[in-house]
Amino acid sequence: MPKFVDHEKQKILLAEAVWRIIRREGIEKASVRNIAEEAGISTGSMRHYFSTQSELFAFAMELVATRVKERMERFAFSGNPVEDMRKLLLELLPMDEERRAETEVWLAFNIKALSDPNLKKLSTRVYQEMKQGMSLMVDTLIQYDLAVSEIDRDSEIENLYGLIDGLALHAIIRTDDLPPETMEEAVSQYIGRLCK
Amino acid sequence: MPKFVDHEKQKILLAEAVWRIIRREGIEKASVRNIAEEAGISTGSMRHYFSTQSELFAFAMELVATRVKERMERFAFSGNPVEDMRKLLLELLPMDEERRAETEVWLAFNIKALSDPNLKKLSTRVYQEMKQGMSLMVDTLIQYDLAVSEIDRDSEIENLYGLIDGLALHAIIRTDDLPPETMEEAVSQYIGRLCK
Repeated sequence: MPKFVDHEKQKILLAEAVWRIIRREGIEKASVRNIAEEAGISTGSMRHYFSTQSELFAFAMELVATRVKERMERFAFSGNPVEDMRKLLLELLPMDEERRAETEVWLAFNIKALSDPNLKKLSTRVYQEMKQGMSLMVDTLIQYDLAVSEIDRDSEIENLYGLIDGLALHAIIRTDDLPPETMEEAVSQYIGRLCK
Repeated sequence: MPKFVDHEKQKILLAEAVWRIIRREGIEKASVRNIAEEAGISTGSMRHYFSTQSELFAFAMELVATRVKERMERFAFSGNPVEDMRKLLLELLPMDEERRAETEVWLAFNIKALSDPNLKKLSTRVYQEMKQGMSLMVDTLIQYDLAVSEIDRDSEIENLYGLIDGLALHAIIRTDDLPPETMEEAVSQYIGRLCK
């Protein structure tokens, strides 16, 4: 199906053009005209792929989630639950340029989602998926009797998820303050205190 | 100085108009024309208060920080460091409508700051001030010998600050998932494990 593949490829190119504009100039500059120019196609051909800007935004936002999910699926479990948890959490943080780009774009879309019902649905769905991932990590530690006994499971899940997204936010707002080593230390300290 | 007071008042009215547009429609809709309309004044009179949109944005962003700071200055310390820490942290979270508004607007400005050097300076300054506040809390626990012995001070400060901003972010993205009680429990659990 070469035609289908090209269609998908073109959509991804357009989504990546949106990402670049968001990172360089902010989401308010991602007009249909600017996106077309950035991607090097006409606004007319753009309508062949997306009928509205909102549709393109939803696709570009979903693409961030897809990229993160693909990376998580490639994760090689070691069999050591504590070490695997540490590494999985670091996968979610902007430890390199690729993940920094994803984090910046993801946050911009989530803030936009506060006033855009289309993006809001996607934001909610991914939030729930991520929270399930966090629950799985906490539950694994509890099941293997690795966690300290006095934890409240539900609060712990909120804490863990809050910590990761807070560190991600800080790492893009104040890059110099949160280099990869500092994020690693912060995550290690959190896990160290959560475990026996 | 009644004239000066009126001038300041008008600037605050304009800043609050920006806040309302950001919350309702997103920061990309906060054009000079829309702000003037929302505030009920002409774009001509608006230029009397702010010569550029960027200047108004910086004022509106700073106003969020000022409101938070004023609330912190009114905080009545009880003398119990652990309980005071818990209450101070909750002051920083969107526990009511006023703080929810501040959090939404603050995050929108911080994301915009990634591509706006003028706002970036302000974002950096407030980030450092907030981090000093977090350091003070952690140091107080250490000085009073209330913290567990195995903490690494610097990582702890990043964790605490990350947790608070992560919970704030989640509370505005997924309001239903993080009602005030859940935020309280999450903060209590964090402090409980940090302390002996």
